[in-house]
Amino acid sequence: MDKKPQSLGEKDKGSMAKNGTKEMEAESPFYLCSKAHKPDQSIIQIGPVYVGSDELLIIAGPCAVESEVQIHETAAAVKRAGAHVLRGGLFKPRTSPYSFQGLGLEGLNFFVNAAKEHGLLTVTEVMDLTHLDILAQHVDILQVGSRNMQNYPLLKALGALDKPVLLKRGLSSTVEELLAAAEYILVGGNHKVVLCERGIRTFQNHFRFTPDISALPLVHELSHLPIILDPSHCSGRRQWVIPVAKAAIAAGADGLMVEVHPAPDKALSDGPQSLFPHQFQQLMDEMEGLAKALGRKLKRNKGNEKAHHTMPQANL
Amino acid sequence: MDKKPQSLGEKDKGSMAKNGTKEMEAESPFYLCSKAHKPDQSIIQIGPVYVGSDELLIIAGPCAVESEVQIHETAAAVKRAGAHVLRGGLFKPRTSPYSFQGLGLEGLNFFVNAAKEHGLLTVTEVMDLTHLDILAQHVDILQVGSRNMQNYPLLKALGALDKPVLLKRGLSSTVEELLAAAEYILVGGNHKVVLCERGIRTFQNHFRFTPDISALPLVHELSHLPIILDPSHCSGRRQWVIPVAKAAIAAGADGLMVEVHPAPDKALSDGPQSLFPHQFQQLMDEMEGLAKALGRKLKRNKGNEKAHHTMPQANL
Amino acid sequence: MDKKPQSLGEKDKGSMAKNGTKEMEAESPFYLCSKAHKPDQSIIQIGPVYVGSDELLIIAGPCAVESEVQIHETAAAVKRAGAHVLRGGLFKPRTSPYSFQGLGLEGLNFFVNAAKEHGLLTVTEVMDLTHLDILAQHVDILQVGSRNMQNYPLLKALGALDKPVLLKRGLSSTVEELLAAAEYILVGGNHKVVLCERGIRTFQNHFRFTPDISALPLVHELSHLPIILDPSHCSGRRQWVIPVAKAAIAAGADGLMVEVHPAPDKALSDGPQSLFPHQFQQLMDEMEGLAKALGRKLKRNKGNEKAHHTMPQANL
Amino acid sequence: MDKKPQSLGEKDKGSMAKNGTKEMEAESPFYLCSKAHKPDQSIIQIGPVYVGSDELLIIAGPCAVESEVQIHETAAAVKRAGAHVLRGGLFKPRTSPYSFQGLGLEGLNFFVNAAKEHGLLTVTEVMDLTHLDILAQHVDILQVGSRNMQNYPLLKALGALDKPVLLKRGLSSTVEELLAAAEYILVGGNHKVVLCERGIRTFQNHFRFTPDISALPLVHELSHLPIILDPSHCSGRRQWVIPVAKAAIAAGADGLMVEVHPAPDKALSDGPQSLFPHQFQQLMDEMEGLAKALGRKLKRNKGNEKAHHTMPQANL
Repeated sequence: MDKKPQSLGEKDKGSMAKNGTKEMEAESPFYLCSKAHKPDQSIIQIGPVYVGSDELLIIAGPCAVESEVQIHETAAAVKRAGAHVLRGGLFKPRTSPYSFQGLGLEGLNFFVNAAKEHGLLTVTEVMDLTHLDILAQHVDILQVGSRNMQNYPLLKALGALDKPVLLKRGLSSTVEELLAAAEYILVGGNHKVVLCERGIRTFQNHFRFTPDISALPLVHELSHLPIILDPSHCSGRRQWVIPVAKAAIAAGADGLMVEVHPAPDKALSDGPQSLFPHQFQQLMDEMEGLAKALGRKLKRNKGNEKAHHTMPQANL
Repeated sequence: MDKKPQSLGEKDKGSMAKNGTKEMEAESPFYLCSKAHKPDQSIIQIGPVYVGSDELLIIAGPCAVESEVQIHETAAAVKRAGAHVLRGGLFKPRTSPYSFQGLGLEGLNFFVNAAKEHGLLTVTEVMDLTHLDILAQHVDILQVGSRNMQNYPLLKALGALDKPVLLKRGLSSTVEELLAAAEYILVGGNHKVVLCERGIRTFQNHFRFTPDISALPLVHELSHLPIILDPSHCSGRRQWVIPVAKAAIAAGADGLMVEVHPAPDKALSDGPQSLFPHQFQQLMDEMEGLAKALGRKLKRNKGNEKAHHTMPQANL
Repeated sequence: MDKKPQSLGEKDKGSMAKNGTKEMEAESPFYLCSKAHKPDQSIIQIGPVYVGSDELLIIAGPCAVESEVQIHETAAAVKRAGAHVLRGGLFKPRTSPYSFQGLGLEGLNFFVNAAKEHGLLTVTEVMDLTHLDILAQHVDILQVGSRNMQNYPLLKALGALDKPVLLKRGLSSTVEELLAAAEYILVGGNHKVVLCERGIRTFQNHFRFTPDISALPLVHELSHLPIILDPSHCSGRRQWVIPVAKAAIAAGADGLMVEVHPAPDKALSDGPQSLFPHQFQQLMDEMEGLAKALGRKLKRNKGNEKAHHTMPQANL
Repeated sequence: MDKKPQSLGEKDKGSMAKNGTKEMEAESPFYLCSKAHKPDQSIIQIGPVYVGSDELLIIAGPCAVESEVQIHETAAAVKRAGAHVLRGGLFKPRTSPYSFQGLGLEGLNFFVNAAKEHGLLTVTEVMDLTHLDILAQHVDILQVGSRNMQNYPLLKALGALDKPVLLKRGLSSTVEELLAAAEYILVGGNHKVVLCERGIRTFQNHFRFTPDISALPLVHELSHLPIILDPSHCSGRRQWVIPVAKAAIAAGADGLMVEVHPAPDKALSDGPQSLFPHQFQQLMDEMEGLAKALGRKLKRNKGNEKAHHTMPQANL
């Protein structure tokens, strides 16, 4: 559990008042995120998992919510394997304006109901301020996507909420820039930030992005925030997801976010990198032994179906 | 909160219905931007300059509007040297939450008045939908910054305006991704898009970013949209701005966006890469002969001061 | 000058005549290395370890052989922890001509004797043809360094030997280029090639190089050659070596090459990235359980000291 | 002309004696190359051109010498357009062992005779020490290729010659590493080094490599050595060669090395990036006016054919 004293909130407000002073800036652009400021690892409770402790958080689900049937099937499959959180995009940032852009708010009910039905928490990407309120009301964790890592108005708005945020690293952001982006959320008063490495853009040309496992020990050295890794987006093809996932955990990741689809070949987005349900089951099975060998724990989600975990407050 | 009119949503759906067909997608994520779709170079009139013709567009000014005096002095200096458009950030996306974030709307009057006073047009960055309406009312050209190149809600909103947009390439975006981002604006009906190369992130470690002059002939081959280059952000230090600016024009850039500050050493942001006024004068002098040798024209802005150019329609 | 026997030139021409056909080239620049050509994983026996099987090869030692005492102390330490092969540079390729360039052939006896004394095999870098013969006579495995990955005269000469080669990936080579470099050795008739990932150059700026764990499943998919990883050169600092080493094994590496020094703070090169002996012991201890959880084996070298393993033929 | 005092040679030897001392190393890995050591620009006479002065050096020719006819036709064409030096590879470092590796020494006579016939100097790549002596006897300038930039035994051997060296930057070398490689040549006593930028490896995927024009002002700031640019290898396709060449000169390059082939579509290597003779003529015509506008001079080679320029000593 996070041992950060309660008085910090006040100190933070003080910092905000002095916002932009030479002293603060000189110290670090990620002062509140730093181990210098808070040596103890932050532990953020997400459903049954204390993220940042020895327990691993497993998020799984499709790239995008495509239909009621699809999201229910996926929720059932990832729950069966023991995942804790259901992912599913409602608003999809797509490079091409002609690509499927997500179901938008139409998919929200499907998504939330599928998760409840199977005792899973939910995470989805919030792309801009327009839908922040409604998503914050219905979804357990708000994701900031890679393309938005430096969308400062969005980060500031998330800083004002009392809601866990999953902040993905930009595809060519340094770790310092990732932490400085997190700082925008913390400085607003919201300390429930989980970072997510998802691969960086390099000259290497087989994987969609190069999984930067160096970010994992580096974040743990510089910051008290937990960090998970998304092996699907960097791999781009499903046969590489499991080895990358294992490497991530071995290098110290606090969890994984994995794309799973009941019929990847028919997926409207990111099909080639989505695992089949049986592959996700295999990943979870292999991860269990690996976690143990590394001194970590993979507590599979065994909650009664239809018993939605309430989302407790993080104890910061 | 977003003030986007309700009708926009419908228009978007219309655009998507028209364009989101499988055939379009198969063809290209930047169909409307492509030479395949429109072989003739687009020429966008910005004040006295037909951007995309043989004429070069010169945008100059400080990184950020810092004070009334600072922006007036800069406007006077860049006009004296013959610039066409005054740049100046009101909302600054800054890596650190503790860095100067810009004067916000307080600086808008200073900025607009300084430009009018000296017969210059204006460009400023719009960071999110919140300030889009007010900026669109008062500023001649709306800039999308590198960090926002793939902020799709913002791009869609700009697509609904009848206003030139300066779209900066993301620091690790490919040229196709840049064109696909422009496509979001064109597909909404706004064809007045000027692209801007500003350096990419590579292993090279002296310049802040590596000026990618390969993007210039490539954009001219793939697309009918004009492209300019920002030599200041990539250089990071003022001694490199002039050589990079010359290289850009030699490689086919349709103009430049240059940071100029009356006292760079006291600048609140980007001081080391800002030219002194006399250096900008030198750049313009040297550019004039260079343009001629390359078959281009640098028509210096000689408009009467206080005679603000009206913003004519783009000639598409 | 090159002592390459005359007959080699003829053999080369023969190989080229046989292989340099249009069809071969069309197929692949790494045909002999490919799974298409040889679906079964190659297993190369190096001392007690069958590299490419479920057994892990552990190479350890200092960046450079610095003195008789230093290499003996290191050999003792790495053997105690169970390493199989002693590394140690005699000729060091150094960016600066003013840096320590290695002891050269003066260090060869120290190196070979230290290894024999402690029942270890030896690997050292061969930088050019000049010293190839003498190194090939006394050292068990010849290493091609990153800077020399595409030194084709050197690769061709190694192809004519019957000697294991450790081929390090160039710091910005693609995996295909690495395999094509290996092909130069295989095409000459030497199939005992072990590849080595050692980090690539990216924009990321904390680690010396970015460990590219994506290369591990990719090589295993494209090629039958084994691949190990060097966690020391990419990390650049010793606190990151163990997490990177674990990630490598988790992602499928067939072994590790680790820098160890009895007094890293006094090392003449690469001190900051060299493990202390007790840290290498810890790495080996942790690796044992990890290997097991992954279905691999770490057979620690328990050979009687002074009983130098003979170098058996590779089992191809 | 280079104003470096004669006594420098002795001072250098002194430095060599102190080779590897803490002071030297602390100062810089490229001390002899630095402006700190020698503030005046080095000017190296290559045939009729004083490289490093306001005069531009133009090297042109095929990637590889393929046949007597091909190299004679190319020599005639590039001389007609005014080039100073004929390039042509005899030993080609090729990624694939199945690609055309060059005619080797068989092509040397063709090459040298074609150049003499048309009053051109010669440059070719030396790949290793084996052929250094014979190439140094017959060729005017020895090229070190990108893959060999850090082949230290080769650099040291070139440092012992009295012969101009064209040193190409490695595809992911920093400018400091390029200068440190040059230092290996200078420290040996050979100061006739011309650097060559040829593109770096980045995520950008249209050009074969990203032409790094930032290297040009940077080299001129850090070092007194001249630097030219090869627009062919970075472009990879001939339609981009001329814009890149212009950008290079505009950014301060001291010359160009351009691939020209009489029938690029039949070239055995690098055909797509080779200019047709009429395109090289166009490049030279356009370059003449551009050079003038930039305060540089393009003195076209008008020497009588068959009157081979003798290679004067550089005046260092």
